[in-house]
Amino acid sequence: MKFIPVKGTRDFYPEAMRMRNWIADAWRSASLRNGFEEYDSPIFEYLDLFTAKSGDEIASQLFNLTDRGGRNLAIRPEITPSLARMVNAKINALPRPIKWFSIPRLCRAERPQKGRLREFFQWNVDIIGPQDELADAECVLTAVDAMRELGLTSNDVQVCYSSRELLSEVLESLGVKGQSSADVMAVLDKRNKLPAEKFEAMLSDAVGDKTAMAGILKFLDTGAIDPDASPAEIAASAGIAPSENATAAIAKLQAFGGYLKAFGIADWCRYDTGIVRGLAYYTGIVYEVMDVGETLRAIAGGGRYDNLLEVLGGPAVAASGFGMGDVVLGILLEEKQLIGDLAQGVELFVIDGSADMFSDVINVVGRLRSVGAAAEFSYKRQNIGKQLKQADRRGACKAVILEPDGVVMIKDLASGEQTACKLAEILSDPTTIL
Amino acid sequence: MKFIPVKGTRDFYPEAMRMRNWIADAWRSASLRNGFEEYDSPIFEYLDLFTAKSGDEIASQLFNLTDRGGRNLAIRPEITPSLARMVNAKINALPRPIKWFSIPRLCRAERPQKGRLREFFQWNVDIIGPQDELADAECVLTAVDAMRELGLTSNDVQVCYSSRELLSEVLESLGVKGQSSADVMAVLDKRNKLPAEKFEAMLSDAVGDKTAMAGILKFLDTGAIDPDASPAEIAASAGIAPSENATAAIAKLQAFGGYLKAFGIADWCRYDTGIVRGLAYYTGIVYEVMDVGETLRAIAGGGRYDNLLEVLGGPAVAASGFGMGDVVLGILLEEKQLIGDLAQGVELFVIDGSADMFSDVINVVGRLRSVGAAAEFSYKRQNIGKQLKQADRRGACKAVILEPDGVVMIKDLASGEQTACKLAEILSDPTTIL
Repeated sequence: MKFIPVKGTRDFYPEAMRMRNWIADAWRSASLRNGFEEYDSPIFEYLDLFTAKSGDEIASQLFNLTDRGGRNLAIRPEITPSLARMVNAKINALPRPIKWFSIPRLCRAERPQKGRLREFFQWNVDIIGPQDELADAECVLTAVDAMRELGLTSNDVQVCYSSRELLSEVLESLGVKGQSSADVMAVLDKRNKLPAEKFEAMLSDAVGDKTAMAGILKFLDTGAIDPDASPAEIAASAGIAPSENATAAIAKLQAFGGYLKAFGIADWCRYDTGIVRGLAYYTGIVYEVMDVGETLRAIAGGGRYDNLLEVLGGPAVAASGFGMGDVVLGILLEEKQLIGDLAQGVELFVIDGSADMFSDVINVVGRLRSVGAAAEFSYKRQNIGKQLKQADRRGACKAVILEPDGVVMIKDLASGEQTACKLAEILSDPTTIL
Repeated sequence: MKFIPVKGTRDFYPEAMRMRNWIADAWRSASLRNGFEEYDSPIFEYLDLFTAKSGDEIASQLFNLTDRGGRNLAIRPEITPSLARMVNAKINALPRPIKWFSIPRLCRAERPQKGRLREFFQWNVDIIGPQDELADAECVLTAVDAMRELGLTSNDVQVCYSSRELLSEVLESLGVKGQSSADVMAVLDKRNKLPAEKFEAMLSDAVGDKTAMAGILKFLDTGAIDPDASPAEIAASAGIAPSENATAAIAKLQAFGGYLKAFGIADWCRYDTGIVRGLAYYTGIVYEVMDVGETLRAIAGGGRYDNLLEVLGGPAVAASGFGMGDVVLGILLEEKQLIGDLAQGVELFVIDGSADMFSDVINVVGRLRSVGAAAEFSYKRQNIGKQLKQADRRGACKAVILEPDGVVMIKDLASGEQTACKLAEILSDPTTIL
C-alpha cells in the first residue's frame, strides 16, 4: 500500500513551508503597511456563488462536492465572489473605503503545468467604495511594496496596465459587438502567450472585417499615454473614435498614471494594450504583473470590477483589486536567487555532561521555554561532543552544558566564548542566561 | 438573489480574523520555541488515505469529491494521515526525532453544534521517532506553553491523561475482547459527556458480564498514580491483574508523570481513567485538554500512535502528537475574557491642509510606505478636523499634516504634542519622522 499526493497539489515539507511563509509574511506586512485589514472566507461555498458571475472559464475548473442535504457546493477557485458576498451582507455597517486583504488557499481542477497547480495560495487585495482610480493605483502600490520587500525590482517585473473600458469602446466603434467582442477579447488575452503570426491569424478569424482588424492593430500599437495631452488628442493618435466614453476612459488612464507617479512607482508600471484579463467582471483599469523577460505566466492580475457586488445581490458599489499567486512568484524568486537561508535556529541547546543529569536538562528546558526562550535538547543520550554537533545542526546560538556539581557552562557557538553559572540560578531565574 | 455561507462554516470578518490570527500566532510561536518545524499537506487527498485507518467515525464525516479523471478524493478531516504519508515518503532522509507542527484547515461533514463546526483550524504537534514517553510529555508541554501564552492557567484547563495500553490490558484480563472491547471503549469515551446513571447503563450493556463490569468500575476509580510505588503495587490497588503488559503500561504512566514534573507542568496535568480518545490508532498514553468546569468539549486531544506509519505503508516508527482546534478554545478564551483589543493601528496618518495639496499627500504616503512605515490617508477630501478624527479611528500614532508653503506639522495623537518640519525633508528622507 503506497499513498501519494494528488497530482497538482504540493506537500509542504519544512523547507518548502518556510518559503511559503516567507512569501505570505511579505504579503501580510505589505498589506498592513498599506492600511488593509485581513479577512477570510470558508474553503467551500454554495456552487451558485461561483457560477453566478465569473464566466465559463472558472466554472469549468471547479471542484464540486455536496453537503449532507445533497446541496451543491464547490471549493473556492477564487475569493472575490466570497468577498463580494461578505461585503454585501454588511454593506451598511462597514465604513468605507473597505480596504481588505486575504491569503486564501484556492483550488482549480485544471491540468497542472508550469506555474499552474490545482491548489495554490493567492494574495488578494481589494478596495471597495471609491470610484477614483486612486484605489486602483493604491492596490498596485501594495503589490509593488510586497514585491520590493521580497527583493524584486522594476528591472525584474513590470505592472502592465490597460483599460477594459477603452478596449470595449474601441471594439464597439469598429463594429465588433456582442459575442464577436467577447471572442476578440479572448484572443487579445492570449497575445503575450502566442507567436505574432498565430495571434494575428486568430484575431483575424475572430474579427472578420478587415477594416476593423486594421483598427484593432493600430490601437494595439499605442505607446505610452502622454499625461499632458488632451484625451481627444490621444484618441486621435491611437486611431480611436473620440466618443465621450472613449475620452472618459483615456482621462481615467491619465489619472491612474498620475497616481502611480505620485506614489513613486511609475518606473514599475507601463501602459500595455495587450492586457485584457480573462474574467468577465472587470469594468475599468486592468493590469497584470509580468516578469520582464515575459517567459512566465502573469505573477498577478487585477483591476476594477464596479458591477460585481450588484450582480451578487448587493448595491451598486465600486470595487478594485488584484490577486497574486504563490506559484509563479515562487518560480521567479528562485530564478532571481532571491531566496536566502530561511531556516530558523533555536536560541539555546541544553546539554547534559553525563546521562544521569538528563532530568536536569528537561527541567532547564522547561524553565527556559516558560519564559519564552526557544530551547532544544537531544533525545539521544550521547557525549558532549555529539550533543554540541547536534546544537550546531539546529542552528543554536548558545549551548547550555550542565556539568556535575551544579555548574553550568554557557558556550556561544559563534564565538566559542564560554561563561559559567550555577544551575540553581538558572532554575530560579532562567532569563539570566538569555 | 441572496448568497449565504454554508451552515457550519465561518466568515472571518477582520475582527474575527484578528482573533484567529492571535490564536494561530500563539500556536506557531509555542511550536517554534519548543523546537518544532512547520509543514502542511494539500487540502484534499485520495480517499483511501483517510479510510485506511481512522475508524468509521471520521470516514463517515468526509466531504468527498472527484478529480477530472474520476478518482475519489476527500477534503482532509484531520492531518495525521497526511503527516504519516509525507514522513513515510522521506523516512530515510529525515533526521529524527522528527518534530513537526501544522495549523491545517480541516473539514468534517458533521451536524454543526456548539464547539463543533464543519470547517475549523486545528493545531497539530507531532514527534516521530522516539518511543520514550518523553516525546508524549514534550507534546503536552508544547500545548501548555501555547495555552499559557494565550493567558490560560492550570485553574482554567487540565490535561487529563490515561493509557490506552493499560485500558486494553484491563479489559482483556476481564475477558472483554474483540468487538466487545471496542464497544466498551466507545462508551468509556462518552463518560465525561453523559449523566452517571446513563453511562453505567450503557457500559453494563456493552460489557455484559457482571464481574467484568465491577472490575471496570474499580479500574475507573483509580486515583493519582504514585510515582514511588512499584507498578505491581499500583496494579494491585487498582484491581488490575499484574500481567507483564499491565505493569509495563503502568511504568510508562509513571515515566510520563516524571517527565511532566521535570518540565514543570505537573500542576496542569492529572491522571484520568475516563480518557479513551475516539480514534482507533492510539496505542499508548492518550490525553485530552479539558476546561476545569468540564462544560465544554475537549480543547485538544492526542497521544501515542506507534502503528500508524506502518499501517500506511511505511516502516514501524513510533509517533506521538495532539490536535487542538480553534473553536472550543475560542469559546473558552471568550468565557475567560482573555481576548484583549487586537486591532492594529497604523503608525502615521497623512492629512492635507487643503485639497490642492492632495497629490503631496499621496507622494508622502508612497515615500513612507517605501521605507516600511504603515501610513494611511483619507480617500475623501475634507477639512483637517475630520481627517484627524479619521486618523483617530484608524488608531494612528501620529498625524502628518501638510500645510501650505511646504511646512509639515507632526502631531502625536496620544500626547497632542506637535513638531514642525519641511515637506522637502520628508520627501528626501521619510525616516526622519518615524
